[in-house]
Amino acid sequence: MKKTALSFLLFFTAISLHAQQLKVEPTFWWSDMEEPELQLMIYGKDIADYKPTLTSKGIYLKEVVTLESPNYLLLYLDISNSKPETFDIVFSNGKKKITIPYELKQRDPSRRNIKGFDSSDVLYLIMPDRFANGEPSNDQIPMRMPYKVDRNNPNARHGGDLKGISNHLDYLSNLGITAIWLNPVLENDMEGGSYHGYATTDYYRVDPRLGTNEDYVKLINETHAKGMKVVMDMIFNHCGSDHPWMKDVPSKDWFNNLDHYVQTSHMKEVYFDNYASEYDKKRMTDGWFVPSTPDLNQRNRHVAKYLIQNSIWWIEYVGIDGIRQDTYPYADYDMMVNWCKAVYKEYPDFNIVGEAWLNNPIGTSFWQKDSKINPHDTQLKTVMDFPFMGLAHTAFFEETSEWNGGLHSIYEHMTYDFVYADIYHVLRFLDNHDTDRYLPEYPTDLSVFKQGITFLLTMPGIPQLYYGTELLMNGNKQKSDGDIRKDVPGGWPEDNINWFTADGRDSLQNEAFRFMQKLLKWRQGNDIIAHGKMKHYALQKGVYAYERYLGEKSVMVFMNGTSKNVTIELNRYAESLKGKSVGFDILTKQQLQLNATLELTPKQIYIVEL
Amino acid sequence: MKKTALSFLLFFTAISLHAQQLKVEPTFWWSDMEEPELQLMIYGKDIADYKPTLTSKGIYLKEVVTLESPNYLLLYLDISNSKPETFDIVFSNGKKKITIPYELKQRDPSRRNIKGFDSSDVLYLIMPDRFANGEPSNDQIPMRMPYKVDRNNPNARHGGDLKGISNHLDYLSNLGITAIWLNPVLENDMEGGSYHGYATTDYYRVDPRLGTNEDYVKLINETHAKGMKVVMDMIFNHCGSDHPWMKDVPSKDWFNNLDHYVQTSHMKEVYFDNYASEYDKKRMTDGWFVPSTPDLNQRNRHVAKYLIQNSIWWIEYVGIDGIRQDTYPYADYDMMVNWCKAVYKEYPDFNIVGEAWLNNPIGTSFWQKDSKINPHDTQLKTVMDFPFMGLAHTAFFEETSEWNGGLHSIYEHMTYDFVYADIYHVLRFLDNHDTDRYLPEYPTDLSVFKQGITFLLTMPGIPQLYYGTELLMNGNKQKSDGDIRKDVPGGWPEDNINWFTADGRDSLQNEAFRFMQKLLKWRQGNDIIAHGKMKHYALQKGVYAYERYLGEKSVMVFMNGTSKNVTIELNRYAESLKGKSVGFDILTKQQLQLNATLELTPKQIYIVEL
Repeated sequence: MKKTALSFLLFFTAISLHAQQLKVEPTFWWSDMEEPELQLMIYGKDIADYKPTLTSKGIYLKEVVTLESPNYLLLYLDISNSKPETFDIVFSNGKKKITIPYELKQRDPSRRNIKGFDSSDVLYLIMPDRFANGEPSNDQIPMRMPYKVDRNNPNARHGGDLKGISNHLDYLSNLGITAIWLNPVLENDMEGGSYHGYATTDYYRVDPRLGTNEDYVKLINETHAKGMKVVMDMIFNHCGSDHPWMKDVPSKDWFNNLDHYVQTSHMKEVYFDNYASEYDKKRMTDGWFVPSTPDLNQRNRHVAKYLIQNSIWWIEYVGIDGIRQDTYPYADYDMMVNWCKAVYKEYPDFNIVGEAWLNNPIGTSFWQKDSKINPHDTQLKTVMDFPFMGLAHTAFFEETSEWNGGLHSIYEHMTYDFVYADIYHVLRFLDNHDTDRYLPEYPTDLSVFKQGITFLLTMPGIPQLYYGTELLMNGNKQKSDGDIRKDVPGGWPEDNINWFTADGRDSLQNEAFRFMQKLLKWRQGNDIIAHGKMKHYALQKGVYAYERYLGEKSVMVFMNGTSKNVTIELNRYAESLKGKSVGFDILTKQQLQLNATLELTPKQIYIVEL
Repeated sequence: MKKTALSFLLFFTAISLHAQQLKVEPTFWWSDMEEPELQLMIYGKDIADYKPTLTSKGIYLKEVVTLESPNYLLLYLDISNSKPETFDIVFSNGKKKITIPYELKQRDPSRRNIKGFDSSDVLYLIMPDRFANGEPSNDQIPMRMPYKVDRNNPNARHGGDLKGISNHLDYLSNLGITAIWLNPVLENDMEGGSYHGYATTDYYRVDPRLGTNEDYVKLINETHAKGMKVVMDMIFNHCGSDHPWMKDVPSKDWFNNLDHYVQTSHMKEVYFDNYASEYDKKRMTDGWFVPSTPDLNQRNRHVAKYLIQNSIWWIEYVGIDGIRQDTYPYADYDMMVNWCKAVYKEYPDFNIVGEAWLNNPIGTSFWQKDSKINPHDTQLKTVMDFPFMGLAHTAFFEETSEWNGGLHSIYEHMTYDFVYADIYHVLRFLDNHDTDRYLPEYPTDLSVFKQGITFLLTMPGIPQLYYGTELLMNGNKQKSDGDIRKDVPGGWPEDNINWFTADGRDSLQNEAFRFMQKLLKWRQGNDIIAHGKMKHYALQKGVYAYERYLGEKSVMVFMNGTSKNVTIELNRYAESLKGKSVGFDILTKQQLQLNATLELTPKQIYIVEL
């Protein structure tokens, strides 16, 4: 409460309310939605003293809810018979009358058929504050809460923005990725600025340091125009501690544990653990992630409705191609089920990926729709393969021996894929903004790099890359979060070098970029890799061999996990090679003879089209 | 074939066959069995030239099978209408006639109701050659294959035997275990002697270096008389390379890959792995475990019937209380399903534990009857928690920090128990004859030892101990198999010290023995631990707390995973403590005050009855 800014106080100095002093969320809506009920949250001084009526004939005000704070009013409208129109909401208090126009827009008919990101895509995760600064004028601007742009401080805002991303869409398209996932872009008007975006203070506004809502629409349209998709990061579990809801709490049960701080246990296992105590279950969902992120109570039906509507508003308004939902198991389980259903009701082919960070495929697969081991279906289409991420940081780096270690661990990991209900809706990644980068330090050669990337881009599922991987960016979370979220040199006008151009990169970076580019371009439209089945073989002399196949088409990958020259016998792969004695290696762009044996140099990779 | 011993050659020097030159397996059988079909395998020179008939009226000879070798004849008898009787099998070849009496015994009515070992038991695994030598006269005896008893050679026979075990039943009973599992006791007439027992050369005969069939019956009866059970180790996947079947192969398809050696891949994952190649599947089941263990082809119906009947013969003959089946996934999957069904048909309450060594609970739980993730039910009641074994060797030994490591890993492991169809039929263990011993070396104090033992004996499931653990025996498999299978000092007449008596042990050993004895005795008949539910709590300051409860009865365990003094708050355990302010610590045999806080010294354990 101490942090209440001057502008906030000024807001309430008027004697009686005027229309412009009322905040309505969502600011507009659409007719022709599947969901017949629309919640409007009205915010203004003593608005609870007013009685609302509507001028529309098709729309029915079915419920008016006041909360503990007199400054909130919740209207529940039945819009099942609505047409596109602008009607008035009239608030009356004796003689006082306030009139607000409200618009139900015509739906873009293409929205309903949004085809969410899928296994034909490769996602590229960008932390907007750290990628490129396209609009320096929005770096240090007046906000309610004080902050300071400082590129020398790993925990401060650095000034990256949506325009910076827009400026580099050709770079991304040229690299060959097909979708961008941005860390959250909504307002984080927090003391210090909350550069990472995970402390929302306005669910309907892009953070002005990143750009405007219109800039976001523009970025998405430009990205679509270049044939790439956009995934929006959302957080239902918590908001930022400087959210207006914390300054003027709608009702005590809007948040969990508002009276005294309770830290979440982070024990996401409680959902399946037969032994979990009620204490731990409650602490998991109702404890706060960190002190700056108040835990929203999604069991409150108004909170739930607000969040669900907000996500649908963004889909409908900006036309995103998917959602990445943060801290998935930390929110109320049933509400998240309802959320998935609500989104798929409006957009049946949409895709949501949930961050359910568990260390065993049992745990990650539990969260996926239709899981065999979860009697209470989550309805969540896509989950993240955190176990692979963890494993990749050791397995590709160590020597593969005769019977274990190295690529044996990768092989073994893949054998457990069967536990997922839908392996093509599993997000696979080597790193993200919350983990060590795949490369712990700048590499001396690219053998480990190439094997990890090759595997990521050829295994079943949806690959996700983290910005700068193609530039050999490296980092260690133990040092600081900032170490894994560094600025891309060349993204800021003042930078002396520019890694976005070949000239600005060193030769190893260019080798890495070209290697990824080659694989990414090859993967585009490649149905075998996107939708094909997989067959793999227990390792032979430290060489991991696997096939992706679809109909008559087939690709075989051979990966030497050892630092030795190895000659393997090919007869054991007969059921994949099917008698073919020649293939085409897409890395060397050369024919490869497939006779009795195949030789591989240390850490060599063949990607062979048959 | 080179190894054919003199006695074997002499066997065939007779001009024509006499009854005593025919081998019949099984040597006898029982009437009143559920299974109506009995296979008799007749072995003798050119027996296939003879036509068999039976003198019994109730028993019908429904099928006579000759194989590639003329020295085998398989008779399939319908015994559905049999009564106890001895009848003749008459073999005729022109004027030559051989008559063999065959007995169907009266079934012991108690057999059908054998109650297999369960979670009220604690198994104690004994390698008979290494435990105690009760009968030195059977150490170095004439066998077909040469061997030498040499206690200085870790890979040679050492002379332990069944009599040695018989002699120490009071020791075991006094320790407090309730069941012994012996490594295989059947004949291993192999060059070198195959001390471990996993290379069977006669499925119907106890190895004479261990004792006679009658000694085995005697040991089991004595063990039962002392209130303990016996689990028999069986191996269906392979026999020993000196088995008579290898010298005179019944038919080529009696074994897999008889013509040329194929090594199994050990990739037990192929059974669930959606990506597994046919090549790897075939190699897994049909490859040989090691060159001295020919891989039996259980898809051959005669082999399958032989093995199934053999297991039932031992149950019925000696009255064992359970079977531990070796290398479970290496045998034919469908045959093993049929085997389980066949055993449970005769003995509905019997228990079988299968060695399915996989590193993830997904893999181990897959093998258990009614697994949710296995569409083709194995019917196997009990599986082994290998992941816990692997984890225990690091988790109990490392410091538990605020958020991870140490007991956190144990907690996390337990959260995955839900994936098992029946957690009370999961064998839990810290080590066995194939793994490093729990203690890598002789300990300087017992804190790690006690925590591992306490957890093993209080978690849901069937605990299994490995002989000598109570004596602080330690060892590392990397050094040699012998290092984890050492003789127990005092088990041999020539030993100077005797660890079987308190006087022969040092003070640390006596502390370990008494600690285990206290827990084991307390666990006996303790329904809470055997059958109760579990509730556990995310760690508090490195202290793992969990409850076992049944009806109104409850036990709480507190385990300090840190090397520091810790004071924990008890209010979070309210749902377990249920307002009780005092408990009884079974380790100190003292009342324990349960007020607002509880203090624990480094690595301290409380086991509190509430």
